[in-house]
Amino acid sequence: MANRPREIDTLIDMMARLPGLGPRSARRAVLHLVKKRAVLLLPLAEAMQRVAATVRECPRCGNIATAEICEICADPDRATGELCVVEDVSDLWAMERGGAFKGRYHVLGGTLSALDSIGPEELRIPDLSARVREEGITEVILALNATVDGQTTAHYIADELSGTGVRLTSLAQGVPIGGELDYLDDGTISAALKARKGF
Amino acid sequence: MANRPREIDTLIDMMARLPGLGPRSARRAVLHLVKKRAVLLLPLAEAMQRVAATVRECPRCGNIATAEICEICADPDRATGELCVVEDVSDLWAMERGGAFKGRYHVLGGTLSALDSIGPEELRIPDLSARVREEGITEVILALNATVDGQTTAHYIADELSGTGVRLTSLAQGVPIGGELDYLDDGTISAALKARKGF
Repeated sequence: MANRPREIDTLIDMMARLPGLGPRSARRAVLHLVKKRAVLLLPLAEAMQRVAATVRECPRCGNIATAEICEICADPDRATGELCVVEDVSDLWAMERGGAFKGRYHVLGGTLSALDSIGPEELRIPDLSARVREEGITEVILALNATVDGQTTAHYIADELSGTGVRLTSLAQGVPIGGELDYLDDGTISAALKARKGF
Repeated sequence: MANRPREIDTLIDMMARLPGLGPRSARRAVLHLVKKRAVLLLPLAEAMQRVAATVRECPRCGNIATAEICEICADPDRATGELCVVEDVSDLWAMERGGAFKGRYHVLGGTLSALDSIGPEELRIPDLSARVREEGITEVILALNATVDGQTTAHYIADELSGTGVRLTSLAQGVPIGGELDYLDDGTISAALKARKGF
């Protein structure tokens, strides 16, 4: 915009490229930052540069790490023989918030997608078979999203690993805890009915 | 969270303090930044530091500026004798997007509020009378928000300026362009009816 300092316009444009922020919320955020220069703007810029300088991808599992390998791969207590395959680091964080899984992860970095020409080589799929053999994995949990691409990827990985003899499982499908039937889609209700269990 | 690098947690906490972002969207934004380190994370950190180093408040009008005074105060074409009083820089930006106002601004930096103990001295109100006298202002347009605090502040300023002989106006109230009557609140419809004009 005319009559707005160029530095401010540049910052607004960049903030608007973050997921969840549009031009309007980017303007609000930048104005907030300018008003909180000492307590938010400068510390945020420093935190970003520290992340840029220290954070890298764990070469073993694809998680983000600050050391040679990530904290989960480095923790001997997590060598349970269980390996949880997720699409993205955000899914790994979601699993960790759940707190129920005590094994290690394998972050694919996406899903197979013919449309975006993402094949197994673009993901971390070739490494997976090697990990299963080398790390004494007994169970691979396919915790991929319940989308078409996610399930296609899960089936591809199941095929790839079928010769290794490893146990393959996936997350249960059903009614979310606290979920109301009236708000659930038909597919979830059907899946929950099929997988019904003794009370 | 355990098993997440401390640097990442710090950045997520700071991002979550921006207006419009919560913990969940802050996590998404940070993960996006980590993936776009070269094209977004580093340039964003630099843009923030540049803003922190260069952007300041215009001592005359309260707009944000990079020079001694802001671009609008420095532009001789905008010495029209009209002065538009707004609450915040975001309102100044909104007026400028409208593009209809050719004069200068006076940014109060908030509204009078007994609850938050914000009096005239906390805002830029004492400076306003001085500007009206010294800059040959002929009309003061009170473009304050149509909230209780905004209108209280407008009345206070009108009282303050009553002795100067300057013309005082406020923005028209009525139906927004493209607005549907059915979605408007009763107060706006009443105001639009009272201010009806020949067709």
